Amino acid sequence: MNLYYQPDFSEQNPVLSGTEAHHVLSVMRHQAGDQLQITNGSGLIFNCALSNKSSSACTLNIHEIRRIPAPTYQIHIAIGILKASDRMEWFVEKATEIGVQKITFFTSGNCERKVINLDRLHRVAISALKQSGQSWLPIIAGPKRFESVIANPNSQLFIGYIPDHIHVNNLLNEAIAGNSYLVLIGPEGDFTPAEFKLAVSKGFRPISLGNNVMRSETAALSAVQILNLIQAKS
Amino acid sequence: MNLYYQPDFSEQNPVLSGTEAHHVLSVMRHQAGDQLQITNGSGLIFNCALSNKSSSACTLNIHEIRRIPAPTYQIHIAIGILKASDRMEWFVEKATEIGVQKITFFTSGNCERKVINLDRLHRVAISALKQSGQSWLPIIAGPKRFESVIANPNSQLFIGYIPDHIHVNNLLNEAIAGNSYLVLIGPEGDFTPAEFKLAVSKGFRPISLGNNVMRSETAALSAVQILNLIQAKS
Repeated sequence: MNLYYQPDFSEQNPVLSGTEAHHVLSVMRHQAGDQLQITNGSGLIFNCALSNKSSSACTLNIHEIRRIPAPTYQIHIAIGILKASDRMEWFVEKATEIGVQKITFFTSGNCERKVINLDRLHRVAISALKQSGQSWLPIIAGPKRFESVIANPNSQLFIGYIPDHIHVNNLLNEAIAGNSYLVLIGPEGDFTPAEFKLAVSKGFRPISLGNNVMRSETAALSAVQILNLIQAKS
Repeated sequence: MNLYYQPDFSEQNPVLSGTEAHHVLSVMRHQAGDQLQITNGSGLIFNCALSNKSSSACTLNIHEIRRIPAPTYQIHIAIGILKASDRMEWFVEKATEIGVQKITFFTSGNCERKVINLDRLHRVAISALKQSGQSWLPIIAGPKRFESVIANPNSQLFIGYIPDHIHVNNLLNEAIAGNSYLVLIGPEGDFTPAEFKLAVSKGFRPISLGNNVMRSETAALSAVQILNLIQAKS
Protein backbone atom coordinates (compact mmCIF):
# COMPACT_ATOMS: atom_id res chain seq x y z
CA MET A 1 0.00 0.00 0.00
CA ASN A 2 1.35 3.44 -0.87
CA LEU A 3 2.45 5.67 1.98
CA TYR A 4 1.72 9.41 1.81
CA TYR A 5 3.19 12.23 3.87
CA GLN A 6 1.24 15.09 5.35
CA PRO A 7 2.91 16.76 8.34
CA ASP A 8 -0.30 18.25 9.76
CA PHE A 9 -2.45 15.13 9.26
CA SER A 10 -4.36 14.25 12.45
CA GLU A 11 -7.65 12.92 13.75
CA GLN A 12 -8.89 16.49 13.84
CA ASN A 13 -7.61 17.22 10.33
CA PRO A 14 -7.64 14.01 8.25
CA VAL A 15 -6.93 15.84 4.99
CA LEU A 16 -4.31 15.44 2.29
CA SER A 17 -3.54 18.58 0.31
CA GLY A 18 -0.92 19.96 -2.10
CA THR A 19 1.36 17.57 -3.95
CA GLU A 20 0.23 14.55 -1.92
CA ALA A 21 -3.42 15.16 -2.83
CA HIS A 22 -2.33 15.63 -6.45
CA HIS A 23 -0.52 12.30 -6.33
CA VAL A 24 -3.54 10.49 -4.85
CA LEU A 25 -6.07 12.08 -7.18
CA SER A 26 -4.31 12.66 -10.50
CA VAL A 27 -1.36 10.25 -10.57
CA MET A 28 -2.68 7.20 -8.70
CA ARG A 29 -6.34 8.08 -9.51
CA HIS A 30 -7.60 6.67 -6.24
CA GLN A 31 -11.36 6.40 -5.79
CA ALA A 32 -13.55 6.78 -2.72
CA GLY A 33 -13.14 3.70 -0.53
CA ASP A 34 -9.51 3.01 -1.55
CA GLN A 35 -7.19 2.19 1.34
CA LEU A 36 -4.25 4.56 1.94
CA GLN A 37 -1.52 4.98 4.54
CA ILE A 38 -0.50 8.43 5.73
CA THR A 39 2.41 9.40 7.96
CA ASN A 40 2.89 12.75 9.63
CA GLY A 41 6.68 12.21 9.66
CA SER A 42 6.65 12.38 13.46
CA GLY A 43 6.01 8.76 14.31
CA LEU A 44 2.34 8.33 13.43
CA ILE A 45 1.02 6.10 10.66
CA PHE A 46 -2.67 6.33 9.81
CA ASN A 47 -4.51 3.55 8.00
CA CYS A 48 -7.29 5.27 6.13
CA ALA A 49 -9.90 5.00 3.42
CA LEU A 50 -10.48 7.80 0.94
CA SER A 51 -13.86 9.38 1.66
CA ASN A 52 -14.22 12.74 -0.09
CA LYS A 53 -12.21 14.32 -2.84
CA SER A 54 -12.25 17.75 -4.39
CA SER A 55 -9.96 19.00 -7.14
CA SER A 56 -7.14 19.84 -4.73
CA ALA A 57 -7.63 17.93 -1.47
CA CYS A 58 -8.98 14.67 -0.14
CA THR A 59 -10.51 13.77 3.18
CA LEU A 60 -9.94 10.37 4.73
CA ASN A 61 -11.60 8.09 7.23
CA ILE A 62 -9.05 6.90 9.76
CA HIS A 63 -9.35 3.22 10.69
CA GLU A 64 -6.26 2.79 12.77
CA ILE A 65 -3.45 4.91 14.15
CA ARG A 66 -0.04 3.37 14.87
CA ARG A 67 2.57 5.19 16.92
CA ILE A 68 6.15 4.20 16.05
CA PRO A 69 8.58 5.06 18.86
CA ALA A 70 11.46 7.34 17.98
CA PRO A 71 14.81 5.53 17.87
CA THR A 72 16.58 5.48 21.20
CA TYR A 73 19.74 6.71 19.45
CA GLN A 74 20.26 9.77 17.28
CA ILE A 75 22.43 9.68 14.16
CA HIS A 76 23.39 13.19 13.07
CA ILE A 77 25.68 13.63 10.06
CA ALA A 78 27.13 17.07 9.37
CA ILE A 79 28.70 17.30 5.92
CA GLY A 80 30.39 20.10 4.01
CA ILE A 81 28.40 21.49 1.09
CA LEU A 82 29.41 19.60 -2.07
CA LYS A 83 29.96 21.02 -5.52
CA ALA A 84 27.35 18.80 -7.17
CA SER A 85 23.73 19.00 -5.97
CA ASP A 86 23.01 15.47 -7.14
CA ARG A 87 25.64 14.03 -4.81
CA MET A 88 24.00 15.79 -1.84
CA GLU A 89 20.57 14.62 -2.96
CA TRP A 90 21.83 11.07 -3.39
CA PHE A 91 23.24 11.15 0.14
CA VAL A 92 19.97 12.44 1.63
CA GLU A 93 17.99 9.76 -0.20
CA LYS A 94 20.23 6.86 0.77
CA ALA A 95 20.81 8.00 4.36
CA THR A 96 17.05 8.39 4.85
CA GLU A 97 16.40 4.90 3.49
CA ILE A 98 19.06 3.31 5.70
CA GLY A 99 18.15 5.43 8.72
CA VAL A 100 19.31 8.86 9.88
CA GLN A 101 17.79 11.39 12.25
CA LYS A 102 19.49 14.61 11.17
CA ILE A 103 21.66 15.87 8.33
CA THR A 104 23.30 19.28 8.50
CA PHE A 105 25.09 20.84 5.53
CA PHE A 106 27.82 23.25 6.52
CA THR A 107 30.25 25.67 4.91
CA SER A 108 33.92 25.38 5.74
CA GLY A 109 37.23 26.60 4.36
CA ASN A 110 37.40 24.19 1.44
CA CYS A 111 33.74 24.35 0.36
CA GLU A 112 33.60 25.70 -3.19
CA ARG A 113 29.90 26.27 -2.85
CA LYS A 114 28.06 27.99 -0.05
CA VAL A 115 24.38 27.42 -0.79
CA ILE A 116 22.03 24.46 -0.88
CA ASN A 117 18.48 24.03 -2.10
CA LEU A 118 17.08 23.04 1.29
CA ASP A 119 13.55 22.75 -0.04
CA ARG A 120 14.62 20.26 -2.68
CA LEU A 121 16.70 18.23 -0.21
CA HIS A 122 13.68 18.16 2.10
CA ARG A 123 11.54 16.79 -0.74
CA VAL A 124 14.16 14.10 -1.45
CA ALA A 125 14.00 13.05 2.22
CA ILE A 126 10.19 12.91 2.11
CA SER A 127 10.27 10.79 -1.02
CA ALA A 128 12.78 8.36 0.55
CA LEU A 129 10.72 8.24 3.76
CA LYS A 130 7.64 7.21 1.82
CA GLN A 131 9.59 4.78 -0.37
CA SER A 132 11.03 3.01 2.66
CA GLY A 133 7.81 2.95 4.68
CA GLN A 134 9.11 4.95 7.62
CA SER A 135 7.34 7.37 9.93
CA TRP A 136 10.10 9.60 11.30
CA LEU A 137 11.27 12.21 8.82
CA PRO A 138 14.91 13.22 9.32
CA ILE A 139 15.69 16.85 9.90
CA ILE A 140 17.61 18.41 7.00
CA ALA A 141 19.37 21.61 8.03
CA GLY A 142 21.76 24.18 6.63
CA PRO A 143 23.70 25.89 5.41
CA LYS A 144 25.42 26.47 8.76
CA ARG A 145 28.95 27.53 9.49
CA PHE A 146 31.29 24.71 10.47
CA GLU A 147 32.15 26.52 13.68
CA SER A 148 28.50 26.66 14.75
CA VAL A 149 27.96 22.96 14.03
CA ILE A 150 30.72 21.97 16.44
CA ALA A 151 29.98 24.66 19.02
CA ASN A 152 27.76 22.87 21.54
CA PRO A 153 27.80 19.18 20.81
CA ASN A 154 26.31 16.67 23.25
CA SER A 155 26.73 13.26 21.60
CA GLN A 156 29.49 10.80 20.79
CA LEU A 157 31.58 12.96 18.48
CA PHE A 158 33.48 11.82 15.41
CA ILE A 159 35.31 13.41 12.54
CA GLY A 160 36.02 11.50 9.35
CA TYR A 161 39.51 12.83 8.81
CA ILE A 162 42.72 10.87 8.83
CA PRO A 163 45.75 12.91 9.83
CA ASP A 164 48.93 11.88 8.04
CA HIS A 165 50.81 8.96 9.54
CA ILE A 166 48.33 8.45 12.37
CA HIS A 167 46.41 5.23 12.72
CA VAL A 168 42.76 5.75 13.56
CA ASN A 169 40.14 3.12 14.28
CA ASN A 170 37.14 2.39 12.15
CA LEU A 171 33.93 4.02 13.39
CA LEU A 172 32.62 0.48 13.92
CA ASN A 173 35.09 -0.02 16.75
CA GLU A 174 34.57 3.37 18.36
CA ALA A 175 30.83 3.99 18.40
CA ILE A 176 28.85 2.62 21.35
CA ALA A 177 25.37 1.20 20.72
CA GLY A 178 22.43 3.25 21.99
CA ASN A 179 24.28 6.55 22.01
CA SER A 180 23.62 9.64 19.99
CA TYR A 181 26.27 10.51 17.44
CA LEU A 182 27.46 13.51 15.52
CA VAL A 183 29.80 12.66 12.65
CA LEU A 184 31.58 15.40 10.69
CA ILE A 185 32.43 14.77 7.04
CA GLY A 186 34.44 17.31 5.05
CA PRO A 187 33.63 18.66 1.58
CA GLU A 188 35.59 17.59 -1.52
CA GLY A 189 38.75 19.39 -0.40
CA ASP A 190 38.35 17.94 3.14
CA PHE A 191 38.81 19.87 6.35
CA THR A 192 41.65 22.31 6.75
CA PRO A 193 44.20 21.32 9.39
CA ALA A 194 42.94 24.24 11.53
CA GLU A 195 39.36 22.99 11.33
CA PHE A 196 40.47 19.50 12.26
CA LYS A 197 42.40 20.86 15.25
CA LEU A 198 39.40 22.90 16.37
CA ALA A 199 37.09 19.89 16.15
CA VAL A 200 39.51 17.75 18.16
CA SER A 201 39.66 20.48 20.81
CA LYS A 202 35.86 20.22 21.07
CA GLY A 203 36.03 16.48 21.67
CA PHE A 204 35.62 15.06 18.14
CA ARG A 205 37.54 11.85 17.63
CA PRO A 206 39.08 11.03 14.24
CA ILE A 207 37.79 7.79 12.76
CA SER A 208 38.17 5.89 9.53
CA LEU A 209 35.20 4.72 7.48
CA GLY A 210 36.87 2.04 5.39
CA ASN A 211 40.13 1.11 3.73
CA ASN A 212 39.72 3.16 0.58
CA VAL A 213 39.70 6.84 -0.17
CA MET A 214 36.03 7.75 -0.50
CA ARG A 215 34.18 10.70 -1.90
CA SER A 216 32.55 12.82 0.79
CA GLU A 217 29.03 11.54 0.23
CA THR A 218 30.25 7.92 0.18
CA ALA A 219 32.07 8.41 3.48
CA ALA A 220 28.97 10.06 4.97
CA LEU A 221 26.77 7.16 3.88
CA SER A 222 29.27 4.66 5.26
CA ALA A 223 28.99 6.40 8.63
CA VAL A 224 25.18 6.08 8.51
CA GLN A 225 25.47 2.41 7.60
CA ILE A 226 27.99 1.64 10.34
CA LEU A 227 26.01 3.43 13.05
CA ASN A 228 22.85 1.54 12.08
CA LEU A 229 24.72 -1.77 12.08
CA ILE A 230 25.94 -1.11 15.59
CA GLN A 231 22.33 -0.86 16.79
CA ALA A 232 21.38 -4.04 14.91
CA LYS A 233 24.21 -5.96 16.61
CA SER A 234 23.45 -4.75 20.11
CA MET B 1 48.78 13.00 -7.40
CA ASN B 2 46.23 12.03 -10.06
CA LEU B 3 45.88 8.36 -10.85
CA TYR B 4 45.34 7.27 -14.46
CA TYR B 5 44.12 3.94 -15.80
CA GLN B 6 45.60 2.11 -18.76
CA PRO B 7 44.96 -1.63 -18.77
CA ASP B 8 47.90 -2.50 -21.08
CA PHE B 9 50.42 -0.20 -19.37
CA SER B 10 53.66 -2.05 -18.61
CA GLU B 11 57.42 -1.67 -18.51
CA GLN B 12 57.48 -2.77 -22.15
CA ASN B 13 54.69 -0.38 -23.09
CA PRO B 14 54.75 2.68 -20.80
CA VAL B 15 52.22 4.57 -22.92
CA LEU B 16 48.95 6.30 -22.13
CA SER B 17 46.53 6.57 -25.04
CA GLY B 18 42.86 7.32 -25.75
CA THR B 19 40.81 9.19 -23.16
CA GLU B 20 43.52 8.93 -20.51
CA ALA B 21 46.07 10.59 -22.78
CA HIS B 22 43.47 13.24 -23.64
CA HIS B 23 42.92 13.88 -19.94
CA VAL B 24 46.67 14.20 -19.26
CA LEU B 25 47.38 16.37 -22.28
CA SER B 26 44.28 18.51 -22.86
CA VAL B 27 42.42 18.62 -19.54
CA MET B 28 45.23 18.59 -16.96
CA ARG B 29 47.75 20.03 -19.46
CA HIS B 30 50.65 18.13 -17.95
CA GLN B 31 54.14 18.98 -19.18
CA ALA B 32 57.22 16.82 -19.67
CA GLY B 33 58.69 15.99 -16.28
CA ASP B 34 55.37 16.06 -14.40
CA GLN B 35 54.84 13.16 -11.99
CA LEU B 36 51.89 10.84 -12.69
CA GLN B 37 50.54 7.59 -11.27
CA ILE B 38 49.19 4.91 -13.56
CA THR B 39 47.36 1.72 -12.64
CA ASN B 40 46.67 -1.20 -14.95
CA GLY B 41 43.61 -2.15 -12.88
CA SER B 42 45.20 -5.52 -12.11
CA GLY B 43 47.16 -4.66 -9.02
CA LEU B 44 50.05 -2.62 -10.40
CA ILE B 45 50.67 1.06 -9.68
CA PHE B 46 53.41 2.82 -11.64
CA ASN B 47 55.00 6.03 -10.42
CA CYS B 48 56.09 7.84 -13.54
CA ALA B 49 57.24 11.08 -15.07
CA LEU B 50 55.87 12.32 -18.37
CA SER B 51 58.63 12.11 -21.00
CA ASN B 52 57.19 12.40 -24.51
CA LYS B 53 53.84 13.58 -25.72
CA SER B 54 52.22 13.60 -29.12
CA SER B 55 48.73 14.82 -29.94
CA SER B 56 47.11 11.53 -28.91
CA ALA B 57 49.46 9.60 -26.64
CA CYS B 58 52.12 10.10 -24.02
CA THR B 59 55.11 8.05 -23.05
CA LEU B 60 56.28 7.86 -19.46
CA ASN B 61 59.45 7.08 -17.55
CA ILE B 62 58.68 4.57 -14.82
CA HIS B 63 60.41 5.28 -11.51
CA GLU B 64 58.74 2.72 -9.30
CA ILE B 65 56.32 -0.16 -9.63
CA ARG B 66 54.15 -1.21 -6.70
CA ARG B 67 52.29 -4.49 -6.69
CA ILE B 68 49.13 -4.43 -4.54
CA PRO B 69 47.98 -7.94 -3.58
CA ALA B 70 44.47 -8.92 -4.60
CA PRO B 71 42.09 -9.12 -1.63
CA THR B 72 41.99 -12.55 -0.02
CA TYR B 73 38.18 -12.42 -0.18
CA GLN B 74 35.91 -11.86 -3.16
CA ILE B 75 32.74 -9.76 -2.95
CA HIS B 76 30.43 -10.46 -5.87
CA ILE B 77 27.07 -8.69 -6.03
CA ALA B 78 24.52 -9.86 -8.59
CA ILE B 79 21.65 -7.41 -8.97
CA GLY B 80 18.56 -7.34 -11.17
CA ILE B 81 18.63 -4.75 -13.94
CA LEU B 82 16.98 -1.56 -12.65
CA LYS B 83 14.62 0.73 -14.52
CA ALA B 84 16.83 3.80 -14.09
CA SER B 85 20.36 3.74 -15.51
CA ASP B 86 21.53 6.37 -13.05
CA ARG B 87 20.70 4.13 -10.09
CA MET B 88 22.84 1.35 -11.57
CA GLU B 89 25.65 3.81 -12.25
CA TRP B 90 25.49 5.16 -8.70
CA PHE B 91 25.71 1.64 -7.36
CA VAL B 92 28.74 0.81 -9.51
CA GLU B 93 30.47 4.03 -8.47
CA LYS B 94 29.82 3.66 -4.75
CA ALA B 95 30.48 -0.08 -4.59
CA THR B 96 33.80 0.45 -6.39
CA GLU B 97 34.81 3.19 -3.96
CA ILE B 98 33.94 1.11 -0.90
CA GLY B 99 35.37 -2.10 -2.38
CA VAL B 100 33.85 -4.78 -4.60
CA GLN B 101 35.41 -7.38 -6.89
CA LYS B 102 32.56 -8.20 -9.23
CA ILE B 103 29.12 -6.87 -10.11
CA THR B 104 26.78 -8.84 -12.35
CA PHE B 105 23.54 -7.39 -13.69
CA PHE B 106 20.89 -10.01 -14.39
CA THR B 107 17.43 -10.25 -15.87
CA SER B 108 14.72 -11.97 -13.87
CA GLY B 109 10.94 -12.21 -13.89
CA ASN B 110 10.27 -8.76 -12.44
CA CYS B 111 12.90 -6.81 -14.39
CA GLU B 112 11.11 -4.21 -16.48
CA ARG B 113 14.25 -3.63 -18.46
CA LYS B 114 16.51 -6.20 -20.06
CA VAL B 115 19.53 -4.25 -21.30
CA ILE B 116 22.39 -2.30 -19.74
CA ASN B 117 25.04 -0.04 -21.17
CA LEU B 118 27.97 -2.18 -20.06
CA ASP B 119 30.51 0.13 -21.63
CA ARG B 120 29.20 3.09 -19.65
CA LEU B 121 29.07 1.11 -16.39
CA HIS B 122 32.65 0.02 -17.04
CA ARG B 123 33.69 3.66 -17.44
CA VAL B 124 31.94 4.56 -14.18
CA ALA B 125 33.93 1.83 -12.40
CA ILE B 126 37.20 3.11 -13.92
CA SER B 127 36.42 6.62 -12.80
CA ALA B 128 35.65 5.47 -9.24
CA LEU B 129 38.81 3.33 -9.21
CA LYS B 130 40.93 6.35 -10.08
CA GLN B 131 39.05 8.61 -7.67
CA SER B 132 39.61 6.24 -4.77
CA GLY B 133 43.24 5.45 -5.56
CA GLN B 134 42.77 1.72 -6.04
CA SER B 135 44.57 -0.70 -8.33
CA TRP B 136 42.12 -3.59 -8.77
CA LEU B 137 39.32 -2.79 -11.18
CA PRO B 138 36.11 -4.69 -10.40
CA ILE B 139 34.60 -6.85 -13.12
CA ILE B 140 31.28 -5.51 -14.38
CA ALA B 141 29.28 -8.19 -16.16
CA GLY B 142 25.88 -8.71 -17.76
CA PRO B 143 23.21 -8.87 -18.72
CA LYS B 144 22.95 -12.51 -17.67
CA ARG B 145 19.92 -14.60 -16.93
CA PHE B 146 19.17 -15.04 -13.22
CA GLU B 147 19.26 -18.81 -13.64
CA SER B 148 22.79 -18.73 -15.06
CA VAL B 149 24.04 -16.47 -12.22
CA ILE B 150 22.99 -19.01 -9.61
CA ALA B 151 23.93 -22.09 -11.63
CA ASN B 152 27.42 -22.95 -10.37
CA PRO B 153 28.17 -20.88 -7.31
CA ASN B 154 31.22 -21.57 -5.16
CA SER B 155 31.17 -18.94 -2.43
CA GLN B 156 29.19 -18.07 0.68
CA LEU B 157 25.77 -17.53 -0.88
CA PHE B 158 23.18 -14.98 0.17
CA ILE B 159 19.93 -13.64 -1.15
CA GLY B 160 18.54 -10.33 0.02
CA TYR B 161 14.93 -11.42 0.18
CA ILE B 162 12.76 -11.61 3.26
CA PRO B 163 10.01 -14.19 2.99
CA ASP B 164 6.81 -13.19 4.80
CA HIS B 165 6.71 -13.89 8.51
CA ILE B 166 10.16 -15.44 8.61
CA HIS B 167 12.92 -13.91 10.69
CA VAL B 168 16.24 -13.75 8.89
CA ASN B 169 19.56 -12.57 10.27
CA ASN B 170 21.45 -9.52 9.13
CA LEU B 171 24.24 -10.29 6.66
CA LEU B 172 26.63 -8.99 9.31
CA ASN B 173 25.87 -12.00 11.49
CA GLU B 174 26.00 -14.57 8.70
CA ALA B 175 29.05 -13.73 6.60
CA ILE B 176 32.38 -15.18 7.69
CA ALA B 177 35.52 -13.05 7.30
CA GLY B 178 37.97 -14.09 4.61
CA ASN B 179 35.41 -15.93 2.50
CA SER B 180 34.21 -15.18 -0.97
CA TYR B 181 30.62 -14.09 -1.23
CA LEU B 182 27.90 -13.94 -3.82
CA VAL B 183 24.92 -11.79 -2.81
CA LEU B 184 21.76 -11.68 -4.93
CA ILE B 185 19.66 -8.51 -4.91
CA GLY B 186 16.36 -8.35 -6.78
CA PRO B 187 15.19 -5.62 -9.16
CA GLU B 188 12.50 -3.08 -8.16
CA GLY B 189 9.76 -5.71 -8.12
CA ASP B 190 12.02 -8.09 -6.15
CA PHE B 191 12.42 -11.80 -6.86
CA THR B 192 9.43 -13.94 -7.68
CA PRO B 193 8.66 -16.62 -5.08
CA ALA B 194 9.78 -19.25 -7.63
CA GLU B 195 13.15 -17.51 -8.12
CA PHE B 196 13.61 -17.30 -4.36
CA LYS B 197 12.83 -21.00 -3.99
CA LEU B 198 15.26 -21.88 -6.78
CA ALA B 199 18.04 -19.84 -5.16
CA VAL B 200 17.44 -21.47 -1.79
CA SER B 201 17.63 -24.89 -3.45
CA LYS B 202 21.07 -23.88 -4.77
CA GLY B 203 22.27 -23.00 -1.28
CA PHE B 204 21.56 -19.26 -1.10
CA ARG B 205 20.63 -18.13 2.39
CA PRO B 206 18.13 -15.31 2.92
CA ILE B 207 19.57 -12.36 4.84
CA SER B 208 18.41 -8.91 5.87
CA LEU B 209 20.44 -5.80 5.11
CA GLY B 210 18.92 -3.43 7.66
CA ASN B 211 15.69 -2.58 9.43
CA ASN B 212 14.09 -0.51 6.70
CA VAL B 213 12.71 -1.28 3.29
CA MET B 214 15.45 -0.27 0.86
CA ARG B 215 15.59 0.36 -2.83
CA SER B 216 17.50 -2.33 -4.72
CA GLU B 217 20.65 -0.29 -5.21
CA THR B 218 20.66 0.78 -1.54
CA ALA B 219 20.35 -2.83 -0.39
CA ALA B 220 23.15 -3.84 -2.77
CA LEU B 221 25.42 -1.09 -1.47
CA SER B 222 24.61 -2.06 2.12
CA ALA B 223 25.77 -5.59 1.33
CA VAL B 224 29.07 -4.24 -0.03
CA GLN B 225 29.53 -2.10 3.05
CA ILE B 226 28.75 -4.93 5.48
CA LEU B 227 31.08 -7.42 3.75
CA ASN B 228 33.92 -4.89 3.81
CA LEU B 229 33.31 -4.15 7.50
CA ILE B 230 33.55 -7.83 8.31
CA GLN B 231 37.06 -7.90 6.86
CA ALA B 232 38.03 -4.75 8.76
CA LYS B 233 36.87 -6.32 12.05
CA SER B 234 38.64 -9.63 11.56
